[in-house]
Amino acid sequence: MEGISKESLQRLPTYLRYLNELHLNGIESVSSTTIADRFKLNPVTVRKDLAFISEDGGKPKTGFSVADLVAEISEFLGYNNTQDAVLVGVGKLGSALLGYKGFSNYGLNIVASFDCKTDIQIDSTKREINNISMLPDLVKRLGVNIGIITVPAESAQAVCDLMINSGIKAIWNFSPTHLITPDNIAIKNEDMAASLAVLSQRLTAILKNE
Amino acid sequence: MEGISKESLQRLPTYLRYLNELHLNGIESVSSTTIADRFKLNPVTVRKDLAFISEDGGKPKTGFSVADLVAEISEFLGYNNTQDAVLVGVGKLGSALLGYKGFSNYGLNIVASFDCKTDIQIDSTKREINNISMLPDLVKRLGVNIGIITVPAESAQAVCDLMINSGIKAIWNFSPTHLITPDNIAIKNEDMAASLAVLSQRLTAILKNE
Repeated sequence: MEGISKESLQRLPTYLRYLNELHLNGIESVSSTTIADRFKLNPVTVRKDLAFISEDGGKPKTGFSVADLVAEISEFLGYNNTQDAVLVGVGKLGSALLGYKGFSNYGLNIVASFDCKTDIQIDSTKREINNISMLPDLVKRLGVNIGIITVPAESAQAVCDLMINSGIKAIWNFSPTHLITPDNIAIKNEDMAASLAVLSQRLTAILKNE
Repeated sequence: MEGISKESLQRLPTYLRYLNELHLNGIESVSSTTIADRFKLNPVTVRKDLAFISEDGGKPKTGFSVADLVAEISEFLGYNNTQDAVLVGVGKLGSALLGYKGFSNYGLNIVASFDCKTDIQIDSTKREINNISMLPDLVKRLGVNIGIITVPAESAQAVCDLMINSGIKAIWNFSPTHLITPDNIAIKNEDMAASLAVLSQRLTAILKNE
């Protein structure tokens, strides 16, 4: 069995949000064409994406059961098995992520946050911010696999190394720098500059056509 | 001439950050193999990416001039022509973006921020936050093309529609919702759930192999 493509995988949370809306509105079944229309996608794309997820493949007339799809996508994305994470760097962005209520919907639970300030502080959600020196012990003790990095670029590699040495296996990097990691570590960079490059290029094309 | 792929485009800011570092350290030339090693990429990929950017294609022995590549990538990404943007939603994430100093390096200038609160407030960078009702006039007057959305999901579509009706042509959406936009509008979604799905899947594969 081949794995799901990164593109398909990234569309699943979008489908899930839509299906949850339908579910809340009492809609019981949905066709792949309806989903495709909603997101301006090719219906074939949607059908292929859902083929990875759903066992029944949708009925010819009524389509997919909304409740079943919600359960199947949530299961596939691991939203039912909450994963613990630690966050390092409680500046503006770190605080924004700590205060973001949506993560629990995605099966992510930030169990502790850290900063380099020496005294224990309280974050905006009234939780303790720990000194970075406590990270190794806490990560090992709680068996945390995911580390979120929201420190300035110049500190990011040191934080990354500390996380990996402490047993972290997946790094979600929000610092504007490219981190060097061993092959057995999962890494996902949130690169604002890369996103902005894509947006700017599309804007330039649109302005040219006017 | 074919356009550059999205993947290539998204790698350019990463190369540029690295090249700027080399430049600061007084290194004058670099080979595509060195760049590839740095980012664990195939050298062919790097050579193809740079072929879009650089006229001389790099010399066989010394490689590319670092200074020339910095200038060429900056030019290509439009970092020399600053683009103005407005931001709507000055909560935690909006504040984090307003306070982010890196945007100016990427040619982005947030000229005004807006929120739905009725009285004028001051953001963390000591700039005025305007009432959302002032957006259409300000966008038209300043000829702003880019709108950044950092409001809660339930308000995002209304803000998006207001931006488009005011003349915004490119939307950078940080709200966890899929926005419906006309075809002549550029849109880039920062979807945390999609990123997390990719990271979780990689982590699962790593844990399975252990």
